[in-house]
Amino acid sequence: MSVLIVGSTALDSIKTPKAENPRLLGGSASHAAVAASFFSPVKLVGVVGDDFPRRYLQLYKRHGIDLEGLQVLPGNTFHWSGEYELNMNNRRTLLTELGVFETFTPTLPRGHQNSPFVLLANIAPGLQHHVLNQMQRPRFVAADTMDLWLNIALQDVLKLLKRLDAFVLNDSEAHQLTKEDNVFAALKKIHRLGPKYVIIKKGSHGSILSSPRGFFICPAYPLHKVVDPTGAGDAFVGALMGYLATAKGAVDENIRRGMIYGSVVASFCCEGFGLTRTTQITREQINARVKELEKLTRF
Amino acid sequence: MSVLIVGSTALDSIKTPKAENPRLLGGSASHAAVAASFFSPVKLVGVVGDDFPRRYLQLYKRHGIDLEGLQVLPGNTFHWSGEYELNMNNRRTLLTELGVFETFTPTLPRGHQNSPFVLLANIAPGLQHHVLNQMQRPRFVAADTMDLWLNIALQDVLKLLKRLDAFVLNDSEAHQLTKEDNVFAALKKIHRLGPKYVIIKKGSHGSILSSPRGFFICPAYPLHKVVDPTGAGDAFVGALMGYLATAKGAVDENIRRGMIYGSVVASFCCEGFGLTRTTQITREQINARVKELEKLTRF
Repeated sequence: MSVLIVGSTALDSIKTPKAENPRLLGGSASHAAVAASFFSPVKLVGVVGDDFPRRYLQLYKRHGIDLEGLQVLPGNTFHWSGEYELNMNNRRTLLTELGVFETFTPTLPRGHQNSPFVLLANIAPGLQHHVLNQMQRPRFVAADTMDLWLNIALQDVLKLLKRLDAFVLNDSEAHQLTKEDNVFAALKKIHRLGPKYVIIKKGSHGSILSSPRGFFICPAYPLHKVVDPTGAGDAFVGALMGYLATAKGAVDENIRRGMIYGSVVASFCCEGFGLTRTTQITREQINARVKELEKLTRF
Repeated sequence: MSVLIVGSTALDSIKTPKAENPRLLGGSASHAAVAASFFSPVKLVGVVGDDFPRRYLQLYKRHGIDLEGLQVLPGNTFHWSGEYELNMNNRRTLLTELGVFETFTPTLPRGHQNSPFVLLANIAPGLQHHVLNQMQRPRFVAADTMDLWLNIALQDVLKLLKRLDAFVLNDSEAHQLTKEDNVFAALKKIHRLGPKYVIIKKGSHGSILSSPRGFFICPAYPLHKVVDPTGAGDAFVGALMGYLATAKGAVDENIRRGMIYGSVVASFCCEGFGLTRTTQITREQINARVKELEKLTRF
């Protein structure tokens, strides 16, 4: 089955202590779509300007990503610029130019409206609602968010939570949403807001799933060097959804292994700037790291 | 086989946002010894003053801990006082009264000198050396440390590292020692300083082992509420050493499961002030949480 992915499609200018890379392909939907494409067909919904490099469209296509839902509008593509500190954990935004994103309204082509798996990657929660409103009866809906929306559009996020099967957020966002320092206490509170599956991402510390079958402690793949963590969280949830869309059996039976695949694709993402590393990998390389993670956690 | 444990034996006055508990039994050796006692016989080496409450001696004895190496000297027991912030992660020391600890020299009774398993729990590295100098030929030596010794006695720590089989430290100490932000890069550097086994503790994020058989990603047991994390790291390494001392087979085959037992005993430690919770548990309760961790990490 295919995954419909809506989110931001952007040009990212990323500065680290060691390098500077202007106008890389980025955005939550780009990272999630490429990650999902290793597992299932992907339909991308987003918007870019007429400055969007053709090579990036080709990159999507090489990954078999359906671009019927990608609007190309007159104007500039959303441009984000950020700088990482030496430890690669803290980053600050240098620049946000919304461009065509400012007035974007995602409109689903008819063929997209019955997609069974829907990933509402990080984007304004109003737009996430708008996409859901156009869907017929999706089998499984997951959403990601960011601190900004918890600050300026909390009511929209809370309404969205009631429409989701799965909600994915990072630990600082979970704290922001629940005021709980303890991740397990936060998970409990988020369940009460709606979603049956809640995943809290903890960067290099892995992630935690809370589900009807209980908790799952998902490790991060060990990396000796992080080149650029931008998009790793999007890659994680993209790969998870791609895996779920094609795995046989119920979500409950597959979601743990899906998170492991998510961890692995996220680890590749961190090994290069933007999508440069992720776009080079093969399903065999992904499977090899999954096998490694099996060994690294066995006791 | 038995474990010889040297470290601090103290009275801890612990303040959290919710409660204040004066003069609890504490110290690295106390926490490690009680944790190890669930798995193997323990010989404690330390010093207390003549103010040391008799009920704490009885507590050690109830856990079958051999006190022949515990000196009782005229003067006050080492007294530490600390306060935790609301998130229970940050703590500050309010008071450190060394008392009889100031002039303490650990002297091993003859029967202690051939102990096969030795845990040099957190204490001045000079004293850790002094204990090793009295040992005949221990089979497995592990040590813990703290930021203070890395600051004021780094050369002693570096010399100690060459005498160890295993070194256990937390992530901030690993950063302090190696200047590496990346935990796997730090592990590599610490191996070069001597120890074959290096374990980096990450609190609620679990711990990472680097060993001849590769890495092991060890989860923390999920706790919804932390009452007092004091001594959890000592409990972790104490239980690990107790497990190793009695498990059949080579250390390499047992150390992963030993860390899981360490995680579990550390989780109980966090559920009460000082040793109050740890002293109440049974081996059956420990085994039950180990089984839970198996389920929580399976994929």
